Amino acid sequence: MDEAKRIRIYDSFAAQSMMATLGAKLCDVSDGSVRIEAPILPGALQQQGFGHAGLTFSIGDSAAGYAALTCLSLDMEVVTAEIKINLMAPARGEKLIAVGKLVKPGKRLCVVTSEVFAVENGEEKLIAILQGTMVPVPA
Amino acid sequence: MDEAKRIRIYDSFAAQSMMATLGAKLCDVSDGSVRIEAPILPGALQQQGFGHAGLTFSIGDSAAGYAALTCLSLDMEVVTAEIKINLMAPARGEKLIAVGKLVKPGKRLCVVTSEVFAVENGEEKLIAILQGTMVPVPA
Amino acid sequence: MDEAKRIRIYDSFAAQSMMATLGAKLCDVSDGSVRIEAPILPGALQQQGFGHAGLTFSIGDSAAGYAALTCLSLDMEVVTAEIKINLMAPARGEKLIAVGKLVKPGKRLCVVTSEVFAVENGEEKLIAILQGTMVPVPA
Amino acid sequence: MDEAKRIRIYDSFAAQSMMATLGAKLCDVSDGSVRIEAPILPGALQQQGFGHAGLTFSIGDSAAGYAALTCLSLDMEVVTAEIKINLMAPARGEKLIAVGKLVKPGKRLCVVTSEVFAVENGEEKLIAILQGTMVPVPA
Repeated sequence: MDEAKRIRIYDSFAAQSMMATLGAKLCDVSDGSVRIEAPILPGALQQQGFGHAGLTFSIGDSAAGYAALTCLSLDMEVVTAEIKINLMAPARGEKLIAVGKLVKPGKRLCVVTSEVFAVENGEEKLIAILQGTMVPVPA
Repeated sequence: MDEAKRIRIYDSFAAQSMMATLGAKLCDVSDGSVRIEAPILPGALQQQGFGHAGLTFSIGDSAAGYAALTCLSLDMEVVTAEIKINLMAPARGEKLIAVGKLVKPGKRLCVVTSEVFAVENGEEKLIAILQGTMVPVPA
Repeated sequence: MDEAKRIRIYDSFAAQSMMATLGAKLCDVSDGSVRIEAPILPGALQQQGFGHAGLTFSIGDSAAGYAALTCLSLDMEVVTAEIKINLMAPARGEKLIAVGKLVKPGKRLCVVTSEVFAVENGEEKLIAILQGTMVPVPA
Repeated sequence: MDEAKRIRIYDSFAAQSMMATLGAKLCDVSDGSVRIEAPILPGALQQQGFGHAGLTFSIGDSAAGYAALTCLSLDMEVVTAEIKINLMAPARGEKLIAVGKLVKPGKRLCVVTSEVFAVENGEEKLIAILQGTMVPVPA
């Protein structure tokens, strides 16, 4: 994909302090698809000791948002208008991986999905899916 | 409401390390309604410097979950099966307030909603609404 | 509310052949709130003999859409960008009532909710809630 | 797949009078995947003359529900607990095709998705995606 667009996404990701707090890393950016990984930090747990839904949501939402941004010109940003998450299994293991996909690009609205996997003992398990709408806004 | 149930919810909240990381506090627990407040910490921002959607989601989801838990017996917990958030305005100001409501109690599924407000210069503004499903599970 | 806006909504409703097929009627239009009623016709059932989710959805979605339209100028229409429904009880009884509300007006996006009630032996029961996004488009 | 399960799904579909009203047909049932097709009937339109969101929703929801049912024993049915639809393009053309998929089977909850395509001049276009939760209940 376009290198300037890729750099813009890495810069935007680096400007999200929440991603640093969660230890999340941007691992792959290609046209219409973005991958983010995060450990399950001791400070990101829910009451049963699994990763918090807020962690799963945060990286799933960000991966989806940046997947949308891959189709937009350099003077644009995206914000989440709405997104839904179905949580299918506890977030446990070494790390989480979120893969966001752009389903329908658009100037006014972009429709996106995300899958979040937990990696436990080296094995990936799908633990959540997201479906939502991103809105392009001037950067 | 029942004091033992209230204590159980405070204990469960205290066990969520994510809530501590976000600086969130459980402020009010009554039958079918729970209020959580959180500052917008420097470590919980998105790329434009507003509160991250993951922050808004985390406290909105938790408030909704605990609203469901107020109707369940002491040997039960809840987990989020799914939840949707519509983000309507940037999260900016002194703090966020999430108010979760139990719409439909149930032994298998509880339907919940949440409203999240940003307080800026002392004024509350509705910035997000959530609608979702909580599942009772043995504690 | 403005009479021309009200008439526009009645005209738009009348142009929806699906509403006629379902026997739905537009019963109340006020600023930010719209009420639609529909019988549970023999041709709108699911496999257990209750009203089909598609019926509940159709009137809930339409009520929400027209609630958004009450805030828009006469040269605009709305279309549903996305909407989520939680179904809480079977649709049974004499009729269904959908009440749509405009939560957040906007030129690009309107956030809406809807409640759908079933009336059985004269008693109203909340059977579904919806939360979604309407997009203004030129009429 | 198991022939008794397939027959059960065809029987259940035939018992949905809403599907007959919409002219919908069950076209393919395999493990975890179901395909439903429907014409865009003159009685299923919205105010601009395109297929109504309620039509798109009805077949998308049914395809998703039956995809879940393919994994359940013969004494069970499913009902929709909740489902979300993103509408990406107008429903226009000769017919709509909904393909439901079972993402996560479960005894208490099944997570499902659906894609709905419009076929215009023989060309398929993705017009909507759905993501939701089905609940197994005794038949």
